[in-house]
Amino acid sequence: MPLKPIVYHIPVCPFSQRIEILLQLKGHADAVEFRVVDITRPRDAKLLRKTRGTTALPVLETEDGRILKESLVILQYLDETVAGGLKRRADPFEHAVERMLIAKEGPFTAAGYTFVMNQDRAARRSHEEKLLKLFAQLDDFLREHSPGGEFLFAEFGLAEAVFTPIFMRFWFLDYYEGFELPAEPEFDRVRRWRAACLDHPAARQTSREEIVKLYYDYAFGAGNGSLLPGRTKSSFVFEPDFKTRPWPPAEKYGPPASDAALGLAAGSGA
Amino acid sequence: MPLKPIVYHIPVCPFSQRIEILLQLKGHADAVEFRVVDITRPRDAKLLRKTRGTTALPVLETEDGRILKESLVILQYLDETVAGGLKRRADPFEHAVERMLIAKEGPFTAAGYTFVMNQDRAARRSHEEKLLKLFAQLDDFLREHSPGGEFLFAEFGLAEAVFTPIFMRFWFLDYYEGFELPAEPEFDRVRRWRAACLDHPAARQTSREEIVKLYYDYAFGAGNGSLLPGRTKSSFVFEPDFKTRPWPPAEKYGPPASDAALGLAAGSGA
Repeated sequence: MPLKPIVYHIPVCPFSQRIEILLQLKGHADAVEFRVVDITRPRDAKLLRKTRGTTALPVLETEDGRILKESLVILQYLDETVAGGLKRRADPFEHAVERMLIAKEGPFTAAGYTFVMNQDRAARRSHEEKLLKLFAQLDDFLREHSPGGEFLFAEFGLAEAVFTPIFMRFWFLDYYEGFELPAEPEFDRVRRWRAACLDHPAARQTSREEIVKLYYDYAFGAGNGSLLPGRTKSSFVFEPDFKTRPWPPAEKYGPPASDAALGLAAGSGA
Repeated sequence: MPLKPIVYHIPVCPFSQRIEILLQLKGHADAVEFRVVDITRPRDAKLLRKTRGTTALPVLETEDGRILKESLVILQYLDETVAGGLKRRADPFEHAVERMLIAKEGPFTAAGYTFVMNQDRAARRSHEEKLLKLFAQLDDFLREHSPGGEFLFAEFGLAEAVFTPIFMRFWFLDYYEGFELPAEPEFDRVRRWRAACLDHPAARQTSREEIVKLYYDYAFGAGNGSLLPGRTKSSFVFEPDFKTRPWPPAEKYGPPASDAALGLAAGSGA
């Protein structure tokens, strides 16, 4: 078996999913070996040595053992090294446009994650407003550069690979915060973009059900596998499988559900 | 005269200087027309329309009137479109390494600017510690990828074009905060990198004197041309020319100097 790059990642991590989407677009989903890291356990010492002490994921290890960090860096590296044609726009101006859109992803993702992790009901409205403002900026950008289409350019490309996993994660906002894009014209263009992204066959690596169930703990402020009071298992554990667990209660401003209620207790999912 | 892209920029702006450095490296400093925007006056309505209301600079206008924002986006666009050979590393892994280093510039710049703008003497030490931690991270990164050399790779390249203007701006920290890199081994590698960057002939667009004089107002918390109490002119004004002005007082935790003391009063620099 030929050696492949390895991507170490967290289950259902959006930053790793964009890599999977890129490989799908190239028709080479198997060009990389994905290794899931269990974030509910202490980090493996060997991997920690390779990353020189940092724990952020995903991380790519090349065939000869060299390490790359940062999902956008890994994305470009794989775009340039995996067969199937470059997925970035070839034209320098068009590529600059997709990079400008990609530069908006960081604040957008941060706003949505901060919103779902917020525990202060009184602050809910300001989180929502902040996120809507960023949606409106995406809308304006798409109107400027792609007023009539669905995607930024003719096809689902690099910017879509970057944003689609985030649009999917934000299903946790619709479930736990009752958040939806208002039916106002100022969101029409970004609504059309989001719908086309979510509908694309290259972005089927996870589902609304998996995201809502795994990210339950985020809705109570416990990110990346940390444990809520009274619980012995994170909603990010591998077992029991999410499909065997019940849909969690959607009400987040109150005490979190027990392991048993979430289908996490030993044998509860059997 | 053939049409050229136009870069609108703030005088002595580090994000614009990196573009000038790139063009120098390519041997085509004149491939772009630079237009200075006076940030001490209201923004020109025509430019504001072009940027769809945003005021951040630099902005590039292509020969046919299209707009690009974000200095790193502009940098890549010009690297791909101006003659003189690509200045990014050609090898995908090496380019990924320079992108990882470039990704560290945002927090580094923010830490230095927040430090110089800090007005609370009691917070000084924590600003310094934060910046030193980031210097140590740069040091570690350079040790991993380029232990023996001066630059990240054999020559001054894209990462150096990005960081050198910031190292130059941080002369305001040495002047107004008495900040220096401690003579500890943990900073040896980044110290060697910084020295090589500052010594490079492609990075001579400004000087310590100009930076210290223009950024005086930053040391009192007034960024981007805003006016301090009791002052009628920003230290960023074009006239009188900075060379005619005296070196400002280095003491920052106290009342700021007057227009006259800074050589800014009408006729004072004549």
